[in-house]
Amino acid sequence: MSFINETHDVNLRSWVASANDGKTDFPIQNLPFAIFRRKGSQEAFRGGVAIGDQVLDLAVVANQQLFTGLAQEAVVAAAQSKLNTFMGLGKAHWSALRLALSQALRVGATAQSQLESALVAQAEVEYDMPCTIGDYTDFYTSIYHATAVGRLFRPDNPLLPNYKWVPIGYHGRASSIGVSGQTFPRPKGQTKAPDAEVPSFGPCKRLDYELEVAIYIGKGNALGNAIALDDSDEHVFGFSLFNDWSARDLQAWEYQPLGPFLAKNFASTVSPWIVSNEALAPYRQTWQRDAADPQPLAYLDSAHNRELGAYDIIMDVAIETEQMRAKGESASVVSQSSFKHSYWTVAQMVAHHTVNGCNLQPGDMLGSGTQSGPSHEEAGSLLELTRGGKEAITLNNGETRTFLADGDNVIMRGWCEKPGFARIGFGRVESTILAAQ
Amino acid sequence: MSFINETHDVNLRSWVASANDGKTDFPIQNLPFAIFRRKGSQEAFRGGVAIGDQVLDLAVVANQQLFTGLAQEAVVAAAQSKLNTFMGLGKAHWSALRLALSQALRVGATAQSQLESALVAQAEVEYDMPCTIGDYTDFYTSIYHATAVGRLFRPDNPLLPNYKWVPIGYHGRASSIGVSGQTFPRPKGQTKAPDAEVPSFGPCKRLDYELEVAIYIGKGNALGNAIALDDSDEHVFGFSLFNDWSARDLQAWEYQPLGPFLAKNFASTVSPWIVSNEALAPYRQTWQRDAADPQPLAYLDSAHNRELGAYDIIMDVAIETEQMRAKGESASVVSQSSFKHSYWTVAQMVAHHTVNGCNLQPGDMLGSGTQSGPSHEEAGSLLELTRGGKEAITLNNGETRTFLADGDNVIMRGWCEKPGFARIGFGRVESTILAAQ
Repeated sequence: MSFINETHDVNLRSWVASANDGKTDFPIQNLPFAIFRRKGSQEAFRGGVAIGDQVLDLAVVANQQLFTGLAQEAVVAAAQSKLNTFMGLGKAHWSALRLALSQALRVGATAQSQLESALVAQAEVEYDMPCTIGDYTDFYTSIYHATAVGRLFRPDNPLLPNYKWVPIGYHGRASSIGVSGQTFPRPKGQTKAPDAEVPSFGPCKRLDYELEVAIYIGKGNALGNAIALDDSDEHVFGFSLFNDWSARDLQAWEYQPLGPFLAKNFASTVSPWIVSNEALAPYRQTWQRDAADPQPLAYLDSAHNRELGAYDIIMDVAIETEQMRAKGESASVVSQSSFKHSYWTVAQMVAHHTVNGCNLQPGDMLGSGTQSGPSHEEAGSLLELTRGGKEAITLNNGETRTFLADGDNVIMRGWCEKPGFARIGFGRVESTILAAQ
Repeated sequence: MSFINETHDVNLRSWVASANDGKTDFPIQNLPFAIFRRKGSQEAFRGGVAIGDQVLDLAVVANQQLFTGLAQEAVVAAAQSKLNTFMGLGKAHWSALRLALSQALRVGATAQSQLESALVAQAEVEYDMPCTIGDYTDFYTSIYHATAVGRLFRPDNPLLPNYKWVPIGYHGRASSIGVSGQTFPRPKGQTKAPDAEVPSFGPCKRLDYELEVAIYIGKGNALGNAIALDDSDEHVFGFSLFNDWSARDLQAWEYQPLGPFLAKNFASTVSPWIVSNEALAPYRQTWQRDAADPQPLAYLDSAHNRELGAYDIIMDVAIETEQMRAKGESASVVSQSSFKHSYWTVAQMVAHHTVNGCNLQPGDMLGSGTQSGPSHEEAGSLLELTRGGKEAITLNNGETRTFLADGDNVIMRGWCEKPGFARIGFGRVESTILAAQ
């Protein structure tokens, strides 16, 4: 696999001891980026890299002038209050900084004594949005999700004819995307029961999560210039977890003919850490179409390189209710899935998004769409798990849910593991629903 | 009409003579804002106000310290390279600056000698985007457009059941919005003819314009806090013209079930000048529902103030072909309509957009949706004018069009006129289609 280099070596150990326990999300093979500061402080937010249970403060590292060339240019950019400038530098810079950090954090590195002063415990920090998201696009890449949701609305014809040809996507709202820890009131809006004469107004009754991967664009493209499938790695900076909250009853009444709107834009939550595309190299997947399915059109295919853009990222969802918090009980995991089930790859999303000349910019975010797997238990939303709210699920403590209740904290985690490689994780995204205002 | 004040007085004259000819879009009663610099220069872009055939350079005015209090604070903000900060200051600041500018530009103003040095001829400037558009939402407020387009797809059921209850809107792409003068290659993409077995890939064959009003948000709202209908004037900064280019054949194949995507995001073009909400006060319209139509739900209605948010803005569309340019012929006007036909008002759009807690930010833009009037000749798109491409229209020079050809320059104008008030205009938005790459 040509994507693998010395930074992925499973035998690497860090002088930060907590990075070597085999359980952390953040071993030296990961090195994800976030924007942070000390909790409750008035410090400026700046870039950081996770290593074990610590954050390496990139503002300190940049000032130390430890690195040279592209790596030093990159760390100066990554030390800013948002990662956009760093993301826009491109793959050579990203890769140079990853190598420099990997070398400097290894056991025996001469930089250890200097870098020890740049560590802050993760337990003591708070996060901001990792970048300014200029535009957010949500895709719909899980054929299992599209089929399950389609079946609820159209039992005889669940999957629309364009699905296997077009990587379906639509524009989302960037302003209401927040970082893990975001809270928001239950949205209000218009709904109409199937048997009602007229719509009514009130708090959403079918509030749901959606388990997604966020894909961050690094280097952009000029208006009019498409990004070819084979070039997508030059433009994909990294990945995080993403909860695309959904108000199912609002959506059902509003979405024809132009798509979801108020059902989605009240809040969306990302995890703080962006795992780089390079860190995920060991977890790339080759893909192929079933014989019964159409081959993608030429601009969405690349026969010589079908490793482009598919990834095995395992994800799960847990619900922590108010009652669980009061009793000190653990959150209840309700499903687990993987991004490897995606019908369309990241490379196909990027190529499709730009084939008409649409320009992507550093920090733009693509949602993968809800990542449901082939079995019912791998569903990425309550809409699917409860079959449209008809079959309640039972949580570990005996409580039941069809849709989410006020006070529910929804927690998503993600990780990658494979023999011969270090397990790396995404941390978590969590967010709590407040009562309607 | 409580919205009218001394800045709207039809008898006001400016010491800038070109503002007084009765034909200019920019008399002293207008005073719209743009971001400009001298054409072809390396000057910094900064805020300007149109007066007659001149631009008043707000960077110069801010430095002159001519104004005091809110007006001086406002002009300092408006002198920046984007208008977002000024837009975020709120209505008291917008209004103070408008009054100060109106007084300083009147015949007899003591400021004349100082301000003369701040004038730049419009013929010598170029424009940038007036603000950074964080998020762009496109509405669908013309019931005539919705019905005409719906009829093409669903002859027996043109208007969907939610239309008269929900101000339908969807999220658009901000990155590809450009200012008048923008050019872009004809988009490519997937299309599927009704009788074709499989889709094909190539340049769009049904490229269209859409005649819209752009509504710019000034002061925003916090996530979770809805903007009440009655408060919308505190948040609406101003208006411009907007061409929401559309690839009809791409749209037909891609838009189910999540709405338009690549059919829209290859380019969208705004006019450089933003006419303030206050300048439009004389052209507000009261509105009412036909007896046969449902009354809006409470959050979309305000019985005591139905002047909120409806405006009589006349708009037209012209096509200038390559052949016309080669022969020096004038562009051919193909339709004229007015924003007064909108089924939903600006106040209703703002209240609906935020009723679920969605946060708007200074510089966000709302598209009105295509503004077609009640008669066929008032259609705001070629899709409607040519009845889905079935009946070509004939231009002044004898050329015909079903959809747009490469080299076509589409020009939109807008203005307001009413006895007892000064005619004010929006200038124009124009943009030329290049051949597919």
